[in-house]
Amino acid sequence: MTEDDLIAKLQAIVSHAAPGALLVGIGDDAAVWQPSRSHRSVITTDALIEDVHFTRAAMSAADVGHRALASNLSDIAAMGAKPVLATIAFGVGPGADEAWILDCYRGIAALAERAKCAIAGGDIVRAPAIMISITIVGEVRASNLKTRAAMLPGDTIAVTGPLGASRAGLAVAVEHPELASEAGAAEALRAFRTPEPRLAEGRWLAASRNVRAMMDTSDGLSTDLARLARASNAGATIETVPVAECARALAPRAGADAQAWALDGGEDYELLVSVASRAFSHLAGRFHARFGRPLLRVGVATAETGLRHAGGAPIASAGWDHLR
Amino acid sequence: MTEDDLIAKLQAIVSHAAPGALLVGIGDDAAVWQPSRSHRSVITTDALIEDVHFTRAAMSAADVGHRALASNLSDIAAMGAKPVLATIAFGVGPGADEAWILDCYRGIAALAERAKCAIAGGDIVRAPAIMISITIVGEVRASNLKTRAAMLPGDTIAVTGPLGASRAGLAVAVEHPELASEAGAAEALRAFRTPEPRLAEGRWLAASRNVRAMMDTSDGLSTDLARLARASNAGATIETVPVAECARALAPRAGADAQAWALDGGEDYELLVSVASRAFSHLAGRFHARFGRPLLRVGVATAETGLRHAGGAPIASAGWDHLR
Repeated sequence: MTEDDLIAKLQAIVSHAAPGALLVGIGDDAAVWQPSRSHRSVITTDALIEDVHFTRAAMSAADVGHRALASNLSDIAAMGAKPVLATIAFGVGPGADEAWILDCYRGIAALAERAKCAIAGGDIVRAPAIMISITIVGEVRASNLKTRAAMLPGDTIAVTGPLGASRAGLAVAVEHPELASEAGAAEALRAFRTPEPRLAEGRWLAASRNVRAMMDTSDGLSTDLARLARASNAGATIETVPVAECARALAPRAGADAQAWALDGGEDYELLVSVASRAFSHLAGRFHARFGRPLLRVGVATAETGLRHAGGAPIASAGWDHLR
Repeated sequence: MTEDDLIAKLQAIVSHAAPGALLVGIGDDAAVWQPSRSHRSVITTDALIEDVHFTRAAMSAADVGHRALASNLSDIAAMGAKPVLATIAFGVGPGADEAWILDCYRGIAALAERAKCAIAGGDIVRAPAIMISITIVGEVRASNLKTRAAMLPGDTIAVTGPLGASRAGLAVAVEHPELASEAGAAEALRAFRTPEPRLAEGRWLAASRNVRAMMDTSDGLSTDLARLARASNAGATIETVPVAECARALAPRAGADAQAWALDGGEDYELLVSVASRAFSHLAGRFHARFGRPLLRVGVATAETGLRHAGGAPIASAGWDHLR
């Protein structure tokens, strides 16, 4: 049973429940409905489970809270939306005493405040492990909404930052603690523990008509670009995998391949966009001027479906799948 | 650590995160914001955890799905709103094989369809136990919105149905399976496994200006009425506890007190309202004509805070507290 298989089956089961109300439903980063004529509301849900998505040994309570909210905010960013409010269902596992829970909510609240996202409520329940399930509602101007479904063959594919840093951080935090004092370790740990959702970048990119499709890279470029391509009935050729410097420095020390980390590692929370190719260099220049770092070209969209390296070799989706 | 204590602390932590966007935040059945001038959107979250809220032995997968959605829909009903869409975070525990998960979603989808609630998406994750966290967004005409905070001393307090049936069903399903063939057992099991959220009743009551405050009785009358009173800076005297017939029939066989089941049992998902006293009998008559059953008087709101029996004896909140 894979996650995508299961989601497809669940989608068939629930698709009869009043789909008319939805403009975008299951299968994108967030669902969309229409609260007013000019704006669209978006909603997204993400759950973190202790010992599946994090361990208390590798992350502080505040970092866990930050990450739980950041992964949701990243989905809001990927729609071109701004966050409005969040709800939190919190499962109190045996490892969560009151101090841990409060610190976790402090981590959530600090990021929520910066993101101007209200915490609207939630539910607290006993659970066999710590569980944090967050739902965020966001809002986007109707004309700016970006889904996964509008990439066209020939589009330039790009990401808002280099990849693999979060995977390098996982290596330092969990697999190779002896690397903690190496060059790049602090940056890698920061990317792993307190990733920064690309909210400003998402809204900026969404305002361009030349940006055709957008999603975030939470499950790894190889998995997420394949999903983007599939949603657009297209394919993609990856020409360059932008590898984060800390991943490049740390991978050999961990006996790993930095390019594989960048391609399959996931949890980088950069945005992945498809851009009308004739507009790309102008857009990338303005992006650099606005955010102080490059919009990184990854490859090109193709009419032929599937994911390939520039040489033609097929790329398997080796990123994160919860049910694999 | 009690649930209410912890929520109060968490509220203090998160209250600085853009509270201006919210019309009603933490502490009511659902949060409220404003999608358009005339309507309000509401959002609510509830999580069910295996072996905390249900066991696979006592309930079918479809019933677990039904209940998970029903408890959320009940919160939407308690705001006077109609549901618009739901998101589902699903934790796949070791006991959830593909067939179980699909049946569970069928239970969700069947109720969602009847309630005209779209399923907008969600997240599927591995977990140490089955976990179903549902968030629902609803919509209500601004003038109909009912919170917990507007009960006035002298108001008549009433519920939309007799209480204790769900607690009786728990007794039959889990504690005393030998009662399964007794009179009332089938009705009690139905109340426990597939409770019916009072959506139509909630919208109808919300349309009356004489209904001042409304909430659902998910945690038991003694706990929930105390919360309603506290939110309104008031108190309440309980004159009559309306006990479900099946609870009355089964409690003696289970060595239990039917009135205690009705007062403290919880999970009945009836609506609890405070009504301007001079308007109550007219409203109750119209309610009966519309829904074919009585709006049941429970007691009266008082200026003095706290919960009392008619004789003056204080009532402890003995309903469900997840962290007690």
